[in-house]
Amino acid sequence: MTEQSPIPDDQTAEKSAEREEDEYLPRPELLQQIDAAIEAEDAAELNTLLEPMHAADIADVIENLDPAERRAFIGLYGGEIDGEILSEIDEAIRDQIIEMLPREVLADAVREMDSDDVVDLIEDMDEPEREEILSALDAGDRAAVQQSLAYPEYSAGRMMQSEVVTAPEHWTVGETLDFLRNEDWLPEQFYHVVLVDPRRHPIGYVTLGRLLAAKRSTPLKELEEDSFRTVSVYADEGDVAYIFNQYHLISAPVVDGDDRLVGVITIDDAMSVLDEEHEEDILRLAGVGEDSAITDTVMETLRQRIPWLAVNLVTAIVASLVIAVFENTIQQVVALAVLMPIVASMGGNAGTQTLTVAVRALATKSLTGSNVWRVVRREAVVGLLNGLAFAVVMGVVAWFWFDGVSLAAVIGIAMVVNLAIAALAGILIPLALEKAGADPALASGTFVTTVTDVVGFFAFLGLASAVLI
Amino acid sequence: MTEQSPIPDDQTAEKSAEREEDEYLPRPELLQQIDAAIEAEDAAELNTLLEPMHAADIADVIENLDPAERRAFIGLYGGEIDGEILSEIDEAIRDQIIEMLPREVLADAVREMDSDDVVDLIEDMDEPEREEILSALDAGDRAAVQQSLAYPEYSAGRMMQSEVVTAPEHWTVGETLDFLRNEDWLPEQFYHVVLVDPRRHPIGYVTLGRLLAAKRSTPLKELEEDSFRTVSVYADEGDVAYIFNQYHLISAPVVDGDDRLVGVITIDDAMSVLDEEHEEDILRLAGVGEDSAITDTVMETLRQRIPWLAVNLVTAIVASLVIAVFENTIQQVVALAVLMPIVASMGGNAGTQTLTVAVRALATKSLTGSNVWRVVRREAVVGLLNGLAFAVVMGVVAWFWFDGVSLAAVIGIAMVVNLAIAALAGILIPLALEKAGADPALASGTFVTTVTDVVGFFAFLGLASAVLI
Repeated sequence: MTEQSPIPDDQTAEKSAEREEDEYLPRPELLQQIDAAIEAEDAAELNTLLEPMHAADIADVIENLDPAERRAFIGLYGGEIDGEILSEIDEAIRDQIIEMLPREVLADAVREMDSDDVVDLIEDMDEPEREEILSALDAGDRAAVQQSLAYPEYSAGRMMQSEVVTAPEHWTVGETLDFLRNEDWLPEQFYHVVLVDPRRHPIGYVTLGRLLAAKRSTPLKELEEDSFRTVSVYADEGDVAYIFNQYHLISAPVVDGDDRLVGVITIDDAMSVLDEEHEEDILRLAGVGEDSAITDTVMETLRQRIPWLAVNLVTAIVASLVIAVFENTIQQVVALAVLMPIVASMGGNAGTQTLTVAVRALATKSLTGSNVWRVVRREAVVGLLNGLAFAVVMGVVAWFWFDGVSLAAVIGIAMVVNLAIAALAGILIPLALEKAGADPALASGTFVTTVTDVVGFFAFLGLASAVLI
Repeated sequence: MTEQSPIPDDQTAEKSAEREEDEYLPRPELLQQIDAAIEAEDAAELNTLLEPMHAADIADVIENLDPAERRAFIGLYGGEIDGEILSEIDEAIRDQIIEMLPREVLADAVREMDSDDVVDLIEDMDEPEREEILSALDAGDRAAVQQSLAYPEYSAGRMMQSEVVTAPEHWTVGETLDFLRNEDWLPEQFYHVVLVDPRRHPIGYVTLGRLLAAKRSTPLKELEEDSFRTVSVYADEGDVAYIFNQYHLISAPVVDGDDRLVGVITIDDAMSVLDEEHEEDILRLAGVGEDSAITDTVMETLRQRIPWLAVNLVTAIVASLVIAVFENTIQQVVALAVLMPIVASMGGNAGTQTLTVAVRALATKSLTGSNVWRVVRREAVVGLLNGLAFAVVMGVVAWFWFDGVSLAAVIGIAMVVNLAIAALAGILIPLALEKAGADPALASGTFVTTVTDVVGFFAFLGLASAVLI
């Protein structure tokens, strides 16, 4: 970091904190002071400390408290929790907070939120709780939220906000400006004015920048953007995030089955979805439940992890059954027991490499019908070449180590077979899961390593018992 | 998908394609037609097919061609490649395309690009090629690009565009609107007017929406947004993406060491960086080079993957050395060879689970000094409980399978030891790497599985030779 000149305004404290070592996090001292204030049950101090903080940072503070501290915190600060803070808190923890909050605080918080945030808040609630929150909204907002909830989970309909700024297609810039100045319901953030025909079909949009730069007499039609595209209200949220990223959209009008405008999705929501989908992919590839968070309790963590460990135990036992078939061979040549994990481990790693590239390519829609056979062929060739390379290396190692040229040949051949199979399994298994409608990130890893363990042990020990005994 | 009503405009074809099965991808038939046109060397047909497509989709088409087809494609369509298409193509392939393009086409393409895209294009080029492209720019753009290149790679300075819309802090809405109408250099997309003091320090910003909705006489000062925060030109691009995501920013002014405004970063760039960083994390966790792409050739793929397979071979051999120590024991109790991979595999999986959660928490800055010991403690407890649970299951399995209660006890104890160590390794290794300034995603996996293999084999075989022999 470079030296800062003195900053002549009241943001000095915040700015200088921002420029320190980990400049985008609240300072550790501040977090300690917050902890101390909670312990001392000093509500005034807590208020003073949290007052300058961004809602997202306050949400992080709340997430990082342990359950007992969190209850104490709500006792001291609950009255200050607003819609913005609530929208920022992780879902699992938010549900706890909501139960602790006084009903009237919750009602106030919800009234401040955008319709898409309210939907996000209540979509997983039970009917009575949901009703309670809906009843806090005024009629118009409640209708918008209920409409949104009528669309499938993870659809564009759940992501969108219903407040859209529109203008008839024949308007001029001047008419639009006059209209905007006289409206007081405008959304917090909007980036386009959507042009609609008389039946409320969106037919184009104009960026606010162009609107500002144009003469009052210019027809909106002349300022339309090329990037315009609509999203179906039933589109999957992952696909929505994909088109925002692919086409660099800032906002996209959402249309119903009759192509009528029903809402708008903005890039910040698309960015959140993209972030969540990535997170899910990473966690699923590692065999961890996709709701895992660093703030989970021990019990929650066990619940997220035990299922995949159990699956792994079963597949590991299956691989061991293969070894058991060759017990006699191992007893005669113990070197096999020493070397066999190497063959399995190399296969597992090579398979995971291919698998990961395939899962990501499927997620980013870059592995499609048009290139799938080219990619499969490439992976097979790569697998074979990797196998040959490591067969030579490992053959030499085994030869020197155990002084047996047949053993060296056996491990070399087993290596080629296993790495070639690993590559094929790494690409074909995720493709098959995708074809079957499953998430390729979810179960591929286990399938692939089961294949490489079984094939690795079988090829190596089978060959050995044929050649060496 | 629901039924669509007829769409009465010229976008019918594109829209109906969008609503088909995989509605956000170009239709497979179209891709086949493009392939056919390339093969027939039919430039006119190729032009007709590509004309309605978005630059990002044309870039995808180019990426998915094999090298020979790509050369043919450039021969037919090279003259149409513009700045937008170039910015969308993957870096490795873009470099090939640039070499094939006629110099004047390249110069035209570069002149159309925003300064941040030009920087992205040329930052990895050698000096002579870089000079050639710079010389195609007009003096102002060239200066902006050179200024940006003077900042470190992966810094905010490289991400930002230098075109910023500013207004003196004392202006009214009316003055600002008149100013904007008289400027013809405005950026393609902008979302805020940045308020600056006479020394060009940014002191706030106003969204275009508020500007449009306000009366002409309103001072800009009254419309300032709370969300305002600046980014240092030296900030790491990953940190920039983090603050956009954390604070829901749409654009952020970039300041130099003297806090003077030098550019602006917009959310679409932050979204790209977030996407790339995730991709990098996933690939690194799988031991694949972070530049891997589905379009790589066999040689490129081998180059990305062999290094980590080689590292894995070394660690697998280390684990085998542990087994070799106990060769005599295995010869006497072959069941050990059958069961030992299960202990190692369970440890590897449990360690990878913990590791992945830790790496993600570090990347999202949710694992910090204030909660690190709580998390380490939780992981240790989870590891112990997982170990106990699977010790019981595996003990029972071993007992029935090999009819030996001592063997069951040995595998049970080894399981507890290995899963507890796996959990500690899974959290402590990424923390140590982060502390040492390395990317925890990069090497953690190998370290963790080495630990779990070595500990697994040692605990199981060591105990067995003490108890069973």
